[in-house]
Amino acid sequence: MDTQQFREFGKAAVDYIADYFETIRDRPVLPSVEPGYLGDLLPKEPPQTGESWQDVLQDVDRIIMPGLTHWHSPKFHAFYPTANSFPAVVGEMLSAGFGCVGLSWIASPAYTELEVVMMNWLGKLLDLPEEFLNSSEGPGGGIIQGSASEVTFIGLLAAKEKKVKDLMEQNPDLKESDIKGKLVAYTSDQSNSSVEKAGLLGSMPMRLIPSNDEGQLSSGAFIEAIRKDKEAGLIPCYLVACLGTTPTCAFDDLTELGPICNRENIWLHVDAAYAGAAFACPEYRYLMKGVEYADSFNFNPHKWMLVNFDCSAMWVKNAKYLVEAFNVQRIYLKDQHKDLAPEYRHWQISLGRRFRALKLWFVLKIYGVEGIQKYIRDQIGLAKKFEELVNNDNRFEVCTSSMGLVTFRLKGEDSLTKSLLEKIDQRKNIFMVPGHFKNKFVLRFVICSRLSTEEDVKYSWEEIRDQADEVVPTERRKIVEEISGKRSIATIELYESAIEKIKLEKSK
Amino acid sequence: MDTQQFREFGKAAVDYIADYFETIRDRPVLPSVEPGYLGDLLPKEPPQTGESWQDVLQDVDRIIMPGLTHWHSPKFHAFYPTANSFPAVVGEMLSAGFGCVGLSWIASPAYTELEVVMMNWLGKLLDLPEEFLNSSEGPGGGIIQGSASEVTFIGLLAAKEKKVKDLMEQNPDLKESDIKGKLVAYTSDQSNSSVEKAGLLGSMPMRLIPSNDEGQLSSGAFIEAIRKDKEAGLIPCYLVACLGTTPTCAFDDLTELGPICNRENIWLHVDAAYAGAAFACPEYRYLMKGVEYADSFNFNPHKWMLVNFDCSAMWVKNAKYLVEAFNVQRIYLKDQHKDLAPEYRHWQISLGRRFRALKLWFVLKIYGVEGIQKYIRDQIGLAKKFEELVNNDNRFEVCTSSMGLVTFRLKGEDSLTKSLLEKIDQRKNIFMVPGHFKNKFVLRFVICSRLSTEEDVKYSWEEIRDQADEVVPTERRKIVEEISGKRSIATIELYESAIEKIKLEKSK
Repeated sequence: MDTQQFREFGKAAVDYIADYFETIRDRPVLPSVEPGYLGDLLPKEPPQTGESWQDVLQDVDRIIMPGLTHWHSPKFHAFYPTANSFPAVVGEMLSAGFGCVGLSWIASPAYTELEVVMMNWLGKLLDLPEEFLNSSEGPGGGIIQGSASEVTFIGLLAAKEKKVKDLMEQNPDLKESDIKGKLVAYTSDQSNSSVEKAGLLGSMPMRLIPSNDEGQLSSGAFIEAIRKDKEAGLIPCYLVACLGTTPTCAFDDLTELGPICNRENIWLHVDAAYAGAAFACPEYRYLMKGVEYADSFNFNPHKWMLVNFDCSAMWVKNAKYLVEAFNVQRIYLKDQHKDLAPEYRHWQISLGRRFRALKLWFVLKIYGVEGIQKYIRDQIGLAKKFEELVNNDNRFEVCTSSMGLVTFRLKGEDSLTKSLLEKIDQRKNIFMVPGHFKNKFVLRFVICSRLSTEEDVKYSWEEIRDQADEVVPTERRKIVEEISGKRSIATIELYESAIEKIKLEKSK
Repeated sequence: MDTQQFREFGKAAVDYIADYFETIRDRPVLPSVEPGYLGDLLPKEPPQTGESWQDVLQDVDRIIMPGLTHWHSPKFHAFYPTANSFPAVVGEMLSAGFGCVGLSWIASPAYTELEVVMMNWLGKLLDLPEEFLNSSEGPGGGIIQGSASEVTFIGLLAAKEKKVKDLMEQNPDLKESDIKGKLVAYTSDQSNSSVEKAGLLGSMPMRLIPSNDEGQLSSGAFIEAIRKDKEAGLIPCYLVACLGTTPTCAFDDLTELGPICNRENIWLHVDAAYAGAAFACPEYRYLMKGVEYADSFNFNPHKWMLVNFDCSAMWVKNAKYLVEAFNVQRIYLKDQHKDLAPEYRHWQISLGRRFRALKLWFVLKIYGVEGIQKYIRDQIGLAKKFEELVNNDNRFEVCTSSMGLVTFRLKGEDSLTKSLLEKIDQRKNIFMVPGHFKNKFVLRFVICSRLSTEEDVKYSWEEIRDQADEVVPTERRKIVEEISGKRSIATIELYESAIEKIKLEKSK
């Protein structure tokens, strides 16, 4: 493919994306394909000779599009959002075009240096303590990683490194492998599955501490767990606290947990993967009070801050422990400038690095601080709107509401809410996933799409309400059935006037 | 930014990339910036209000471009190539545009399913044993990971899982932590730094086995290392063999190492990160003979197969061990189709996944098998051309030549080659990195750019030759000095006719 063909193909792809976003609201949010659909549409072997880009783009439309789940549709309310904005898409494209691998400063100075500055910008946007920033005097700093999973695991490795070092300094007779075999990590039973996975990956048992009624890690239970482990001869090493848990977006209390960690020399890692973006708005910063106790902090601009996946921001107070856990120097990687710019490859798992700072820069420049704040506030406003709609229907109860996430259920047995979700899933008009809160089955409704409006929230609510009508007949439904004897919900509107009439008569 | 602005911005960015590639040959391959240059060009805080895309693109030109190392310039011969092709750039852009996160089948069926098919295509392109493929009956399969570093580490975790399981089945009284504390891994002293790092990350000592004179892992030394470790009560667990080592692109002999691993129940992982792409050409497949002994196999289409970073292909014979090492199931991740499509999140570190299969598909479709074979053969041909040029200058010696990599040096003391590299580095016209071979300092010359032609190779050689003239005076140089008494090499051309005259006289 020559440059001219690339110009044509690239521009056609830009239009394809633009058209996609202009029509995304009208597509069923969930695909209708069956597992294995795609294997039947493609040959079993790669083509012998090349095909034209026009063929490729047609195949995208024919083969890929029917199998996409539309994460950016305003009808998508599952998981948590994954970010998508036009500036970030262009940033991703330019980064692919330049295509360097930032494995050292000289491998592309702009890669390292833009990341240093962007991590400062981002830290200031969130008002993180100065000592986390690259611009501080001390050994702290920020880096872009691929995912919160990676970060939680890397935090664990740094914690392990620090603990082994500390204990061996106190007692040089200790054996490293003996220490490592006794280390223990902690998190709440509300934390993301990736936290438990980090324990598996790093061979450190991860205790899932019970949460309190608000879904927060209970500091009493934490202290108790530490005590038990110490009694058993184990060594408490690492705590992952959550600012915005996965099930309900609850916030652990760092002002309680932080002092415990500092006292016990436990590395405190803060996972604010989703909700961290909200700290761009001063009115939400009270939720991260106590962050100054933390050793590392993580949030994902690729979740709720308009930067396409992957862009996971990690800050540490002392980068030395990362570097010592990871550093494997070789002659072909010799650094001339190692004291002047961080060698980020020693802060992460992989040797190579994409230019992820570019899309972050584009988003911060094109939205500006105010644009990002407005975005966060609007999304929270839409969740509040949804909460209001649920509260106005007395068949439902709102269980939690925090940031862009509302969890709710049909009053009564779990089976009702389960069957409501089944009906909604079958129709594929909106997409939610379930969770548990206080041992009850709940639905998680998340504002995910950048395009969401109040109208969209109403649409999704009406879909839920209508399907609930199938599960729990309403007063209105009963009246309708009284007059019509019909079970089809689609015809209800026709009877609205009759209902009003009956109501009037009843109230007389 | 609305859709219309995105159309404009996106298309301007396409042109920016196209223009970049059209002018890349004329740019100095290394930037002239000093560490910290970029911090001086940007404000210390993010902008309060948003800026236009035109401003952003101008800033890319003003701030980023001067700090790029041009990996795709034909004058770039450092490290190994990183892939870049137009079809892959567009694939990356569309993947960003769709912006799903493939964390389960339903999270976007096309993501999982295209990856399954592409990993079959790729495995067939390389003629891997059937049991590695998703399309096989058994528990084998392929997945796209982010980097060879990740893959080597994941292989280690799977090996650990398998070994612990095997030993506990044989002897249920054993304690898991006791086994884990005794596991040992092996690789050659020529393997990539990331292999040693995998040992650090996975808390498994990684023995660097001495290589033989050809840079291959010595099977004698391997057997000896196993014997010693077993005598010391340790448990051999994992071998990383290299097909194409980082320093010289040497190939370990799998027909020797494989049977040893199988006999000792050691997980054999094959790291073919760079050279694996060559197996697309049947004439190079003899180099992977014995691959059927391997438990896992990895190569990076993002190095030498035209798919932009990141796209690291990993196959395993039995995916069960990955899944068991990683699986942490939660209700919000419930799989309806878990038996019909692989849940790749259990095969990798992160929960989220980008749509990397898309760019791989674009490359395979637009180049076709023949296009890829031609590309590989052309690149190897250019390296042969370079080797010929070096061989024709008797001041130099070629140390190794394999695939697109030639290592060479000035005959005599290392200091000569070191000072040659210093001179070349200072001029920034071409970029190479050094290595060691048989304890000697060598220069690594790699054909990296997709754009490289024979003319480009000649240009780079002339740059090397001219700088060598400064270090090791040639016959020609001596003659010049004889007549002129001058030391400036720049004036040599003026004396060419005089030299010819002297030569003629001498030969008479």
